[in-house]
Amino acid sequence: MPTISINNSQKLNLSPLKMPERLLLGPGPSNAHPAVLQAMNTTPVGHLDPTFLALMDEIQSLLRYVWQTENPLTIAVSGTGTAAMEATLANVVEAGDGVLIGVSGYFGNRLVDMAGRYGAEVKTINKPWGEVFSLDELRAAMATHRPRILALVHAETSTGARQPLEGVGELCREYGCLLLVDTVTSLGGVPIYLDEWGVDLAYSCSQKGLGCPPGASPFTMSARAMEKLQQRSSKVKNWYLDMLLLGKYWGSERVYHHTAPINLYYALREALRLLAEEGVENSWQRHQRNVEYLWENLESIGLTLHVEKQYRLPTLTTVRVPEGKDGKAIASKLLQDYNIEIGNGLGELAGKVWRVGLMGYNSRPESVDQLIAAFKEVLK
Amino acid sequence: MPTISINNSQKLNLSPLKMPERLLLGPGPSNAHPAVLQAMNTTPVGHLDPTFLALMDEIQSLLRYVWQTENPLTIAVSGTGTAAMEATLANVVEAGDGVLIGVSGYFGNRLVDMAGRYGAEVKTINKPWGEVFSLDELRAAMATHRPRILALVHAETSTGARQPLEGVGELCREYGCLLLVDTVTSLGGVPIYLDEWGVDLAYSCSQKGLGCPPGASPFTMSARAMEKLQQRSSKVKNWYLDMLLLGKYWGSERVYHHTAPINLYYALREALRLLAEEGVENSWQRHQRNVEYLWENLESIGLTLHVEKQYRLPTLTTVRVPEGKDGKAIASKLLQDYNIEIGNGLGELAGKVWRVGLMGYNSRPESVDQLIAAFKEVLK
Repeated sequence: MPTISINNSQKLNLSPLKMPERLLLGPGPSNAHPAVLQAMNTTPVGHLDPTFLALMDEIQSLLRYVWQTENPLTIAVSGTGTAAMEATLANVVEAGDGVLIGVSGYFGNRLVDMAGRYGAEVKTINKPWGEVFSLDELRAAMATHRPRILALVHAETSTGARQPLEGVGELCREYGCLLLVDTVTSLGGVPIYLDEWGVDLAYSCSQKGLGCPPGASPFTMSARAMEKLQQRSSKVKNWYLDMLLLGKYWGSERVYHHTAPINLYYALREALRLLAEEGVENSWQRHQRNVEYLWENLESIGLTLHVEKQYRLPTLTTVRVPEGKDGKAIASKLLQDYNIEIGNGLGELAGKVWRVGLMGYNSRPESVDQLIAAFKEVLK
Repeated sequence: MPTISINNSQKLNLSPLKMPERLLLGPGPSNAHPAVLQAMNTTPVGHLDPTFLALMDEIQSLLRYVWQTENPLTIAVSGTGTAAMEATLANVVEAGDGVLIGVSGYFGNRLVDMAGRYGAEVKTINKPWGEVFSLDELRAAMATHRPRILALVHAETSTGARQPLEGVGELCREYGCLLLVDTVTSLGGVPIYLDEWGVDLAYSCSQKGLGCPPGASPFTMSARAMEKLQQRSSKVKNWYLDMLLLGKYWGSERVYHHTAPINLYYALREALRLLAEEGVENSWQRHQRNVEYLWENLESIGLTLHVEKQYRLPTLTTVRVPEGKDGKAIASKLLQDYNIEIGNGLGELAGKVWRVGLMGYNSRPESVDQLIAAFKEVLK
């Protein structure tokens, strides 16, 4: 049958997969709960199988619970957190829409780049990396720019800062503006009340506070955001992430859209089940308790934390690299000699901080003890 | 810590995941090889871990092998096949570009919808569902429309027809046009020679001929396509799928872009390893041998195949629903009573055919025997 001779130049002769066992204390992924890996390992069914459609309903309901929202359109996007991020902008931004973005870290900048690609008139409000915006600062920027959408990063993974959101939803309603919030590093680990806070669009990922492998990403939109989507004068510039189409697959119509990453949905369902079993408020408290234990321990070995205490994230901590030390070399040593991953600084903070995540299944005192013991050795 | 009372209305109290064991003989997903599921179950490492970067290189090389291409930019997109499909158009289409699309099934229509969203001037050439285009027909359409891109579906999953591609690349070069090919249902199971055929852009999925769970999807582009990307006057309208950014993560620069679906890459690497071990030409022959066994058996129980023999796919067969029978009810019965999934017809063929896949790990005589035995019972 082959009519043309086969080119074997790219053919590799490999052994079965062997990967090192790492303790993942970087900005994500974090290690998944063993029960989650086990669920993922289940033989797949089809994406239109009645048992799979029922599982999708469970995912939707549990995502609403962990986000504290009643939004009907609350789903998992078939991609990583960045795909869900893109989905929020792709669905509501039309060319010429004013979008105001709070930039105090890498992910604020990513929102700027993305929104621009969808034709938004982007304005920014800026802060040094590691700080947050006050409600007054946001109010002043809203009055100046009068955007259609305000986008903020709840948990800035590049800085470890938590942006307070109380009052921002009311502000947006005053100005007839949608509120879009990045909850990638907060969902499951940091208190979130989407409906109470008046958030209209949010996205997250699976591999941080939810303790699941990456690849299927939470997305939600409010009735106000849905209205803007339905009133668009042009189609969403992204077929894969078009919520009018996806809503028909996740909703009661069950119209085929794409083949879902079945096994990742298995994993996500199990991760969400475990989180509901624990209780989301208990998970928030666990993350806070363990991160405070981390902070004490880091300070006790002479390290300095980058963010002011009241705005620090319970999921991700930025630690200043001591003067004269090579942060990147130390992180490599932790990885190679101790099988512990921590993150290096990004952007403005490159070389200046490490990023230590304590998220989902990894938010345990043992993770802290293991890291501190290794840190003591490599900082000698 | 929780300052607002928790809304438990969406909290479900679930048991651990339990899914039925299905034999997946629909249009995909197909069952994954047990070794692939096992690899996927490996504890994740980070997406910038040196061991993970090495694994990405292996995936790239093996994808080039199964596609028979030397394209440097050959990667796995972090999403399902539809995301990789979107990536081909998003990267090379600029507003006003003429795109000629061969439509003889559902996926041709999807290309039309997608390309339009990126601002293409879309023209189509059409055939009844189940037929293919001759080179002369394509030549005539090229002369009329003189497009920048010609898009064809190599293996139309909605009809079971295989579009011959010999000579199409030369035709495209004559007209200074890029050739874009959907290989979702062909990669790994149907002979493909991307470089020999002069294909400039191709995409596929993991859950069909490669025998891997869905969620990480092959994408490749030639130097000619890369040139068009580099000469764009505007940014790619899709940050997640921008190959200038993704190329820096998959290439030697290793610049962070997004968190890859780590465990799916493990699975994909194992699926590709097994395919290389078998030899891609042996896999093509196995698919052909088993599908011929399927065809004989289907005909022996009185069923009629929809596509003319020489254009039938070895991966997916469309079977006419006998007069007076309810195709959907029969497929449901196969699923519920025999745990066998087959697909129903889509679009023009809805209600008229079933779609039977024999792909990847499932392309075995036992799959055929199991299906035929069940078919005999339900058709009584």
